[in-house]
Amino acid sequence: VTGQHRPSRLTEKFEGSTRAKLNVLLDEQHIGHFAFVVDGLPRVMPIAYVRDGDELLLHGSTGSPWLRLLGTGVPVQVSVSALDAIVVARSAFESSMQYRSAVLTGHCAAVTKDDRVRSLDLVTEGLLPGRTSEIRTHSAKELAATLTLRMTVDDWTLKISEDWPDDAQADIAGTAWAGIVPLVRGYAEPIPAPDLAAGIAVPESVKRLLG
Amino acid sequence: VTGQHRPSRLTEKFEGSTRAKLNVLLDEQHIGHFAFVVDGLPRVMPIAYVRDGDELLLHGSTGSPWLRLLGTGVPVQVSVSALDAIVVARSAFESSMQYRSAVLTGHCAAVTKDDRVRSLDLVTEGLLPGRTSEIRTHSAKELAATLTLRMTVDDWTLKISEDWPDDAQADIAGTAWAGIVPLVRGYAEPIPAPDLAAGIAVPESVKRLLG
Repeated sequence: VTGQHRPSRLTEKFEGSTRAKLNVLLDEQHIGHFAFVVDGLPRVMPIAYVRDGDELLLHGSTGSPWLRLLGTGVPVQVSVSALDAIVVARSAFESSMQYRSAVLTGHCAAVTKDDRVRSLDLVTEGLLPGRTSEIRTHSAKELAATLTLRMTVDDWTLKISEDWPDDAQADIAGTAWAGIVPLVRGYAEPIPAPDLAAGIAVPESVKRLLG
Repeated sequence: VTGQHRPSRLTEKFEGSTRAKLNVLLDEQHIGHFAFVVDGLPRVMPIAYVRDGDELLLHGSTGSPWLRLLGTGVPVQVSVSALDAIVVARSAFESSMQYRSAVLTGHCAAVTKDDRVRSLDLVTEGLLPGRTSEIRTHSAKELAATLTLRMTVDDWTLKISEDWPDDAQADIAGTAWAGIVPLVRGYAEPIPAPDLAAGIAVPESVKRLLG
């Protein structure tokens, strides 16, 4: 099929059981790129999120103008993606990437006062599972300074490309190498804060991150 | 300063020499999250890009409706980010992330016919330096099937957070651990395509990726 353009073969909208694949991506990534419209112009910013069931939680300063705007319920679309491999084909045309990409459409609202502590704890646990049991609870001042939003997802798409090189016969018969180069992510050894007192060990939550 | 909200200390708009830091981020990452407006609603999608001087090159199928829309010059904003570490503080409030985040504002146009080959070669080289010299050149059909856009950047911001935990004295005096957990990215061993003929070695471009 080389020389003739075709749409990405593995690009499709998944339904039903593929909700699980969406959740894997959302739980593995921490940053969403949130797009909204201001004065008719596109705005996009990276915001940390945590999935809570079918919704996303995001948080920040009550002083953040953009977060406050999102909290008014304006239409929002968020992109979350992971680059999994470079696909090295025998031609530039067939070279590509293996990736997973979710786009979620919806709107946000501030969480209710009763739900603030639970929501913020989910945020903490989403980044570092087990951490809430290792630290003190939130102070009233901290809660008052934090704006937590819940995004209701009205629609979503998931695109997964697991393509291998798909070269034309003439190229396969040539001498160029083809294959994939996987991209890997992980955690390195933790570095204690300069002001950490002697004798305080790395906690279980951090140890679990390192596997 | 715990208990009192403050804006992110290391969030600022860099000028002048920090253009170099922007370039490092743009060259290290491969995916931008491109936001634009359709019928008054926000749309955002991940698109591979390569930096060419102060501009970005992106490419895809001539059949892609979104790429064609971008090619008409509509306002576009793109978010490129890297998560560098989890900041584990002694409270949820002070816990955060080390990150780099660029937001670029501008508009796209199709590259001129004379610039198509050079632009596509830059795309290939951006993902896998040295690859163009290892593969055949583009066919006329391939060039005709590929839409390559150049994004002119009218404005950009770069935010870098290199924060360490900044806990209150009362928390520092406690028993909770604090520090950072760096996130690392890299390439794993290449995997040959199933249809690769015997005796074709991993090329220099891929070897260099692996360091």
